[in-house]
Amino acid sequence: MPAANVAAVLESLAQADRPAIDRLVDWLKIPSISTDPKYKDDVRRAGQWVVDQLNDLGFEVSLVETGKPAGSGHPVVFGTIKPAPDYKGAHVLFYGHYDVQPVDPLDLWESPPFEPVIKPAEKKGPGERIVARGAVDDKGQVMMFIEACRAWKATTGHATGGAAFTIMIEGEEECGSMNLEAFVKANKAALAKTDVCLISDTGMLGRGKPAITYGVRGLAYTEITLHGANQDLHSGLWGGRSPNPITELARVLAQLHDKNRRVTIPAFYDKVRALTKQERANWAKLKFNQKDALKKIGFPPAADVGEKGFTALEREWGRPTAEINGIWGGYTGAGAKTVIPAKASAKVSFRLVADQDPRKITKAFFAWLKDRTPPGCRWELTDHHGGFGVTVPTDSPTLHAAARAIKKATGKEPALVKTGGSIPVAGMLKDLLKLDTIFMGFGLDDDRVHSPNEKFELDCFRMGMKSHAMFIAELVNAAT
Amino acid sequence: MPAANVAAVLESLAQADRPAIDRLVDWLKIPSISTDPKYKDDVRRAGQWVVDQLNDLGFEVSLVETGKPAGSGHPVVFGTIKPAPDYKGAHVLFYGHYDVQPVDPLDLWESPPFEPVIKPAEKKGPGERIVARGAVDDKGQVMMFIEACRAWKATTGHATGGAAFTIMIEGEEECGSMNLEAFVKANKAALAKTDVCLISDTGMLGRGKPAITYGVRGLAYTEITLHGANQDLHSGLWGGRSPNPITELARVLAQLHDKNRRVTIPAFYDKVRALTKQERANWAKLKFNQKDALKKIGFPPAADVGEKGFTALEREWGRPTAEINGIWGGYTGAGAKTVIPAKASAKVSFRLVADQDPRKITKAFFAWLKDRTPPGCRWELTDHHGGFGVTVPTDSPTLHAAARAIKKATGKEPALVKTGGSIPVAGMLKDLLKLDTIFMGFGLDDDRVHSPNEKFELDCFRMGMKSHAMFIAELVNAAT
Repeated sequence: MPAANVAAVLESLAQADRPAIDRLVDWLKIPSISTDPKYKDDVRRAGQWVVDQLNDLGFEVSLVETGKPAGSGHPVVFGTIKPAPDYKGAHVLFYGHYDVQPVDPLDLWESPPFEPVIKPAEKKGPGERIVARGAVDDKGQVMMFIEACRAWKATTGHATGGAAFTIMIEGEEECGSMNLEAFVKANKAALAKTDVCLISDTGMLGRGKPAITYGVRGLAYTEITLHGANQDLHSGLWGGRSPNPITELARVLAQLHDKNRRVTIPAFYDKVRALTKQERANWAKLKFNQKDALKKIGFPPAADVGEKGFTALEREWGRPTAEINGIWGGYTGAGAKTVIPAKASAKVSFRLVADQDPRKITKAFFAWLKDRTPPGCRWELTDHHGGFGVTVPTDSPTLHAAARAIKKATGKEPALVKTGGSIPVAGMLKDLLKLDTIFMGFGLDDDRVHSPNEKFELDCFRMGMKSHAMFIAELVNAAT
Repeated sequence: MPAANVAAVLESLAQADRPAIDRLVDWLKIPSISTDPKYKDDVRRAGQWVVDQLNDLGFEVSLVETGKPAGSGHPVVFGTIKPAPDYKGAHVLFYGHYDVQPVDPLDLWESPPFEPVIKPAEKKGPGERIVARGAVDDKGQVMMFIEACRAWKATTGHATGGAAFTIMIEGEEECGSMNLEAFVKANKAALAKTDVCLISDTGMLGRGKPAITYGVRGLAYTEITLHGANQDLHSGLWGGRSPNPITELARVLAQLHDKNRRVTIPAFYDKVRALTKQERANWAKLKFNQKDALKKIGFPPAADVGEKGFTALEREWGRPTAEINGIWGGYTGAGAKTVIPAKASAKVSFRLVADQDPRKITKAFFAWLKDRTPPGCRWELTDHHGGFGVTVPTDSPTLHAAARAIKKATGKEPALVKTGGSIPVAGMLKDLLKLDTIFMGFGLDDDRVHSPNEKFELDCFRMGMKSHAMFIAELVNAAT
């Protein structure tokens, strides 16, 4: 692969900058909220949109149904591109997701979440950002790959420059990927041909500081309801002489952490892979400033709380946590209502590290709750599933290729980092196919992922497109 | 007043049984939810409905505006009836309320809350019940008085048989009566002419067991919000290294009661009027069966929890309590969302006994919260107000008159009881006008006051109409 071609690919990318952003805007307009059944058609529409884009570029992909019965889940964008006959490099599985998180609280959005707007970049940065639900998680990052392919197609006539790629872009990442394991098992033969997975759904160390992520956390997500009386009660007549499910739920959940902020569930830490001295030393060198990070989200330094004995980065990247993601019960409207409700509920999730098993953690949590059942009450416990955490080797040829690609595209050596977020598919691919994953992402800490006013800096978007284009070059070069 | 007339009044009541129910149905159709601003016009309409009813019977009442500016509150139905020239008995202030509680959770209603239906009585009773929001609290109970007046009007030409009555029926009882104190002060001259207050908003001891209530609890109602970050956060990136307002709120609220279920706020019990030996002995004689009461609302016997050292009746009638009436924060929709919310909220209220000051209790609670402010977080605290509890003398002539009236109407001596509910107006009338209150109510424990499927047994409604008619007779007889 002559060097001139790479320059042409980058030139093509630069030329198509505005149309690339316009295409992303188009996609972001589709409210593909996978967790809420009323958006089912929109989710499919967002999937079909990718199918059309990829097939235009010469891929052979389609929407493949999931779930039992078939079609009850959201479909997977799945297929391949025919490699050049003489291509001998790695066969890459590109994974992404086209679904997005819910948008509430809607009143905190400065512009409607599905009407993307281009605004000046956040305070510290030059340039612009695109604001919309899904801007960075994950539509914007998937588009970096698609636009890189478009530039290769325009320059060489082949969207991956001849390299072998399989595409798997799912529509259930934001609601637990509950059908993906069955999908992977059903398509094991096709997937077994791939050598490594590429995921563009992670972040950089900071603005202008590219990174490759070598570890993600696992997740176990639950919903718990504590039932009391068979009806809502008047707090004057029943208060103080019958259990109040809200009070009782608070009393139980308050026990989730001890005074050192360790999770109190028995055996919770049993399988946790300990941090190595080397890892802790490497992370310390990153000079992550937790107080600055807290300040950015409106916290005073006193908010630096967490598991005793670990730094902020270690807590996020290398330690498991328990969080209450939602709670509700009783009267929540305006003014006063003197009710003791029949029930109270919470969403409780756990971030896990390699090698904790999410199913075992959920089971242990439910047993812990049952041990604390308040007098006269009963639990209704729902497992919303999750996935394994994963830590991948940092010395593979593909990871080195990705690092070279990023360095060539950005002029900077990427840092090797972990993330506290979860990309359960990585753990599953390791488990089922022995596949390692390269996480090459371009998000920033302040992108408001999962929150109102989610955004993606256009400079990061461009950095990502270039890096993906260069990664394809690395694959093609290695193969020649 | 000849005895024959009383018989004629009762006969008139019996004749008008169906129209009386139809009128109540009419009133119940108006969704007068006072706490929710969007029902403001409906609240006024429900007030005007009573005005029309009373004026048809010869009262001179009207809607009097409340609030600052005037009209910002819900109006009070206020006025008098001209007594017979020779009437020398007690001048009675009739107090009631025409507003109702919110209806959520709406999905638990078997029929729409504002489409009243007549159904067979609850399991143990004969007859029928009327199901609707406000059926017993308080529209149905106010109607007992109005229908008694109608029978007196039909029989004697005067709606109270010549007795002096002032009417004060408010529209803000279910949202804290926040404008009533100013209203009472503004109309002090007119109200000072009354001798005693009659309130029909309480319950019986059980089906066929009439009661007169001599004590109600006070109330302090608050709304608290704990603020964390200035935005919702991703629980993967921030979990375990920043405060989670839901977790922190649960940890604080879990401290509200100690292991003996006593409220832990300093000085909370300082002003509590101790139960007398005599009171405790009298209540013990009522042989209240808490386990049966719990069973009716779906609780096993293990649910009999409450302040150590007190029986269930003592806890309800004679001890203060703290209850969480609502809690909310984070993601509460279907499925999973891995958010750490910017804030979490709760509604927390206290039932008080004489002589606790609700303002001081709220202040002490807020101070208690501030002492427990989680690191990096801040409180937003709102006082939704409340009122004093009250215990009235059991040896007044009017209370004896009420007891005789009930005995003549029902054939049974009424029990002397207290209630755990709050009727803050009673404490305020005592405070501002030195007025004692007679609580003559006909609700049942299982009427689902403030809950879905609120109902009023028609047998109780009839008992109440007769008792009120006989109470008027007692006033008129005492005056001749």
